[in-house]
Amino acid sequence: MRIDVVTIFPEYLEPLNVSLVGKARAAGRLDVRVHDLRDWAHDRHNTVDDTPYGGGPGMVMMTGPWGEALDDTLADGYEAGAGRPALVVPTPSGRPFTQQLAGELAERPWLVFAPARYEGIDTRVTDEYRTRLPVYEVSIGDYVLAGGEAAVLVVTEAVARLLPGVLGNAASYRDDSFAPGAMADLLEGPVYTKPPTWRGRGIPEVLLSGHHGKIARWRRDEALRRTVAHRPDLIRRCDPAAFDKRDREMLSILGWMPGPDGRFGPSPHVMEE
Amino acid sequence: MRIDVVTIFPEYLEPLNVSLVGKARAAGRLDVRVHDLRDWAHDRHNTVDDTPYGGGPGMVMMTGPWGEALDDTLADGYEAGAGRPALVVPTPSGRPFTQQLAGELAERPWLVFAPARYEGIDTRVTDEYRTRLPVYEVSIGDYVLAGGEAAVLVVTEAVARLLPGVLGNAASYRDDSFAPGAMADLLEGPVYTKPPTWRGRGIPEVLLSGHHGKIARWRRDEALRRTVAHRPDLIRRCDPAAFDKRDREMLSILGWMPGPDGRFGPSPHVMEE
Repeated sequence: MRIDVVTIFPEYLEPLNVSLVGKARAAGRLDVRVHDLRDWAHDRHNTVDDTPYGGGPGMVMMTGPWGEALDDTLADGYEAGAGRPALVVPTPSGRPFTQQLAGELAERPWLVFAPARYEGIDTRVTDEYRTRLPVYEVSIGDYVLAGGEAAVLVVTEAVARLLPGVLGNAASYRDDSFAPGAMADLLEGPVYTKPPTWRGRGIPEVLLSGHHGKIARWRRDEALRRTVAHRPDLIRRCDPAAFDKRDREMLSILGWMPGPDGRFGPSPHVMEE
Repeated sequence: MRIDVVTIFPEYLEPLNVSLVGKARAAGRLDVRVHDLRDWAHDRHNTVDDTPYGGGPGMVMMTGPWGEALDDTLADGYEAGAGRPALVVPTPSGRPFTQQLAGELAERPWLVFAPARYEGIDTRVTDEYRTRLPVYEVSIGDYVLAGGEAAVLVVTEAVARLLPGVLGNAASYRDDSFAPGAMADLLEGPVYTKPPTWRGRGIPEVLLSGHHGKIARWRRDEALRRTVAHRPDLIRRCDPAAFDKRDREMLSILGWMPGPDGRFGPSPHVMEE
């Protein structure tokens, strides 16, 4: 996969040399190129922003430098045979970036990231490229950053670990929170490693039992418990058919029961936070 | 505010020298210290992880190095008079990190981040520190990263821009998506700057009208349009009392109407994606 990033803070993308993404690059699975947007500015201050039409605080990134930067970047990748590009624009007003979307992006041969600063990029830039390319405006969460660069790191990392040959142990993402499978839509519960006692704290005995079925059941109970505590929205969203008898028992202990549509919600006797 | 980060990839935190966070540090508003967890490992391989109790793929970070690293880091900050610390542990099984939580963390004098790698940190570590400190286990979104370092960048940036004196223009976060106020819970609509025409694309005339009321209304219409398209969940969550007559008209044009509880949802005649 090829990844291009156009940014006014190229040094923010240094983590793409480190850890999983760095190793994927070294192994030739990822070809990452970071470009400085100001190389496409034309005045002596390398200006890339101006005041918003209609007034208001903040600055808007100009069409000119973005248009030229994206044209040149796309031309370069086409020439190198990088395949069909998609433009990824991190913005708090985008659609949510999810594990499913990470999987979708991981299927593509070439991603071009356009992280904005200030109040965003002049809308005509995405309008223009949307006529030629798939454009993904994505939000990594309901909070506001100083710019899209941190989001580029997040999206790149989430995508890179799904590329073939990048994760050492392919099995190890099957148990991930948000991974497809039995634990789909449940958060992972607690984990433990040696020593068996630390500062007077032991580990749950079942984990030493060697009984795979009981361990799997304990893990699922804990996953249910954690999900109810931290992400009740995920339980509500779960297809009730995914809950077996013991799940239902566990949910009932946690104060959740099926509603008129079969989906689980907190029992009316339990106060929700 | 003081920030400590304990990590096995200190170089991943380089972006904390750049841009908004870098400037806040240079201005003395943020005191950021990054520590290498392996400095607290004791064998010649600097091991910080081991296999999970109960079996399964992946590795779990050990109690030992984390306990010593956190003890030393906390002792150092207490000695420096950093105030009451909070421990922030990024994990996909945490509660969602939101703009509201960013505001809560921004009120604290001192944050200690413990980003995990592999399958997470032995649960006894958070169990232990929770007896002494507030512990925030937070998830920045519904996707899986290779480690918590990218999340540390995200949380730090979201928090830092809320610190007094960090954002140049205090006004400029009032219009943010997810900011409190009139646009609360609506996404920001399109933005434009000079020139008035680019590659044959103009800008909406109203933005040149100089009529503040009309411009504010247009922006709100566009915010409603964008929110319906990208984040219908936010509209559903909105207190219907926050919608004025024109909002309701706009929502109805977009195919949304109030349900039995007064909250807006897609009209039954409109197919949802």
